[in-house]
Amino acid sequence: MPFDRDACRRLDDEDPLRDVRARFVVPERGVYLASNSLGPLPAAAPARLAAAATGAWGEGLVRSWGAAGWFELPRTLGAKMARVLGAAATAVAVTDTISLNLFKLVSAMRARWPERPRVLVETGAFPSDRYVVHAAAGARNVADLRAPEDLDDALADARVGLVVLGHVDYASAFRWDVAAVTRKIHAAGARVIWDLAHSTGVMDLELAAWGVDAAVGCTYKYLSGGPGAPGFVYVSPAIVGELTQPLAGWWGHAEPFAMAGDYEPAPGISRFLCGTQPVLSMVALDAALDAVADVDWGEARRKSERLCAIFIDGIAELSKRHAISVAGPTDPARRGSHVSVQVDAAYEVVQALIARGTVGDFRPPHFARFGFSPLFLRHEDAWRAAHELADVLDTGAWRDPRFAVRRTVT
Amino acid sequence: MPFDRDACRRLDDEDPLRDVRARFVVPERGVYLASNSLGPLPAAAPARLAAAATGAWGEGLVRSWGAAGWFELPRTLGAKMARVLGAAATAVAVTDTISLNLFKLVSAMRARWPERPRVLVETGAFPSDRYVVHAAAGARNVADLRAPEDLDDALADARVGLVVLGHVDYASAFRWDVAAVTRKIHAAGARVIWDLAHSTGVMDLELAAWGVDAAVGCTYKYLSGGPGAPGFVYVSPAIVGELTQPLAGWWGHAEPFAMAGDYEPAPGISRFLCGTQPVLSMVALDAALDAVADVDWGEARRKSERLCAIFIDGIAELSKRHAISVAGPTDPARRGSHVSVQVDAAYEVVQALIARGTVGDFRPPHFARFGFSPLFLRHEDAWRAAHELADVLDTGAWRDPRFAVRRTVT
Repeated sequence: MPFDRDACRRLDDEDPLRDVRARFVVPERGVYLASNSLGPLPAAAPARLAAAATGAWGEGLVRSWGAAGWFELPRTLGAKMARVLGAAATAVAVTDTISLNLFKLVSAMRARWPERPRVLVETGAFPSDRYVVHAAAGARNVADLRAPEDLDDALADARVGLVVLGHVDYASAFRWDVAAVTRKIHAAGARVIWDLAHSTGVMDLELAAWGVDAAVGCTYKYLSGGPGAPGFVYVSPAIVGELTQPLAGWWGHAEPFAMAGDYEPAPGISRFLCGTQPVLSMVALDAALDAVADVDWGEARRKSERLCAIFIDGIAELSKRHAISVAGPTDPARRGSHVSVQVDAAYEVVQALIARGTVGDFRPPHFARFGFSPLFLRHEDAWRAAHELADVLDTGAWRDPRFAVRRTVT
Repeated sequence: MPFDRDACRRLDDEDPLRDVRARFVVPERGVYLASNSLGPLPAAAPARLAAAATGAWGEGLVRSWGAAGWFELPRTLGAKMARVLGAAATAVAVTDTISLNLFKLVSAMRARWPERPRVLVETGAFPSDRYVVHAAAGARNVADLRAPEDLDDALADARVGLVVLGHVDYASAFRWDVAAVTRKIHAAGARVIWDLAHSTGVMDLELAAWGVDAAVGCTYKYLSGGPGAPGFVYVSPAIVGELTQPLAGWWGHAEPFAMAGDYEPAPGISRFLCGTQPVLSMVALDAALDAVADVDWGEARRKSERLCAIFIDGIAELSKRHAISVAGPTDPARRGSHVSVQVDAAYEVVQALIARGTVGDFRPPHFARFGFSPLFLRHEDAWRAAHELADVLDTGAWRDPRFAVRRTVT
């Protein structure tokens, strides 16, 4: 392997993000490579949760909606998310889930621009995104994008008014060039919603500078917001006032406490709120966002590229003696921060790695997926992960029958 | 007052629910009368949250989706909720919010029975319920129910296929007879969705026996699920398989881990799930549901009636010397578990009470609202609350200028 252990250790010594690791509870054994699914616990989160439960809830009770800032959490967390996304502080709300926020956006944007009713969505999009687009637009209004290179042809259809794209593909790690593709979509007279699920927390995002119309994403992956932590929704300030979404709850009302009979959407991004949000889950997310408040996302992206490169080099070496390959692009400019590996008996290989504390996930039919977070992983960890994988294959350790036992969840 | 302090203390000594109080963290000072807004902290919740954060998340990491039962929480909590609601264990899911669950139900039921497209909803319904019905059905398909006595006339309109009713009115505490009204609606050929926000956790509910089609509610009020804890959705097992709701996320899919390209709804109530749920908030709710697992809801209802009667008697007494009255019904058979009081300077009166630790809430223009939870309040507390209110009015304590300072939230 071109990256040897000593070279990785030198990179760790020089790593401008090396102090960030201590802000997370990182397992001592093995290498945790599933923060593309659930990021590790921020060290400050348990104390924050305890204070929210015993203090704000237990003692403050109903007064904490105001006094502890609970009611404002979608906006205060939104402002913290905005820094991660390269957006204006008031352009982001933290609320609900990707599916719900995507439903709101697709519904609102189609209603605003009905003259171009079709929504273009990738056939390989995360399945939920496709379900939601179908449900919000109706099946006859969905156009399928089968491959990235078909985008120009697809945009030639003047009925397409909206494009939904995943910034980084959840399976292959293929990454779109958001700035260039957004320009192209605008040039074709359409608008775009980016799903940032697999890029938030590992990329230097610049939604405002890139002219993005709208975006959704989750916070429980690389950002370590906690299991099922609420997602976020971004809408360009240039169009947010024109969009009315149908999930009309009281938190999205212009005057939520007026108990008005008619729905009047709030002026800005708050109109994308619906019902009361889960405060305890948001408090944990708040700790997570504070843990990355000073992170230079350009540095994070460069480190993420190095981590992936170390692991990909290991796979290349391993492919000389095993039937194994990287499933998606290897060029750093065209990929995200996880690596999907195609290998026979991928399920058993993943289980054998998990038994050693090196946690990735299996994706049918024969992919092992590993997420490389620049926030807490060391370059040496990427080297160790490749080394562990080599050992599991070289020794045939994956053949142990206990690794063939199927689990339904994760 | 017919209920004197000693009589209340005797009722407390005989109270079959007296041991339940210790399961909640109850403020020592004053009387907490806002659990119709946010119920008090269950004593077991902080330890559960700490274990979920440091153990299941911090150590178990992504494996806890299976190993800690996170993925099943909507169903395991649903089964616990089912006991509170008088429903089959598999007929309830805990997920999302009242607004979202109502949107799902109205959309699904109108799509299933399009021949009767109109939705009847109270003009005095909680505003969010009206916003959602308008958004899901379209304004032209909404029929207004102006008063309970207009129900027969409204049901004579054969275009009305669905009725949305609040079991207990959030303002007046007026309570519908769910069994009788459900029968009447069915006899008219329509179906009903009950919003149980202000009855869950204080009433003996029997959704299955009453033949209810569907219901929604929240868990953060009398049930003490925590700020913004997820709500619940009930659908009669007789019709759930016929309903397809449009918020089509992966948690509602028949095979969520198959990553199938097409949406196929899960067979039962799980089809009313959408996206990933906020686990930490659900863990606190789990502790709350365990705290009431053995509660006899018939006893709870009878106690709630006694608590309200004590307070209402106090208001009657007070009305002899002040312009004050109970705003809604006083007959226990026609009311819920909160008391809305109409009084001049209601805002200042509520602030003066809060300053003494007796927490109710102000509702414009001149209502003070007090919730009486049978789970942790003592009969003596209801007596004390009336006594405190009398003192604030008799002494004119509410005239202190600091009680006129307006707060936006709560």
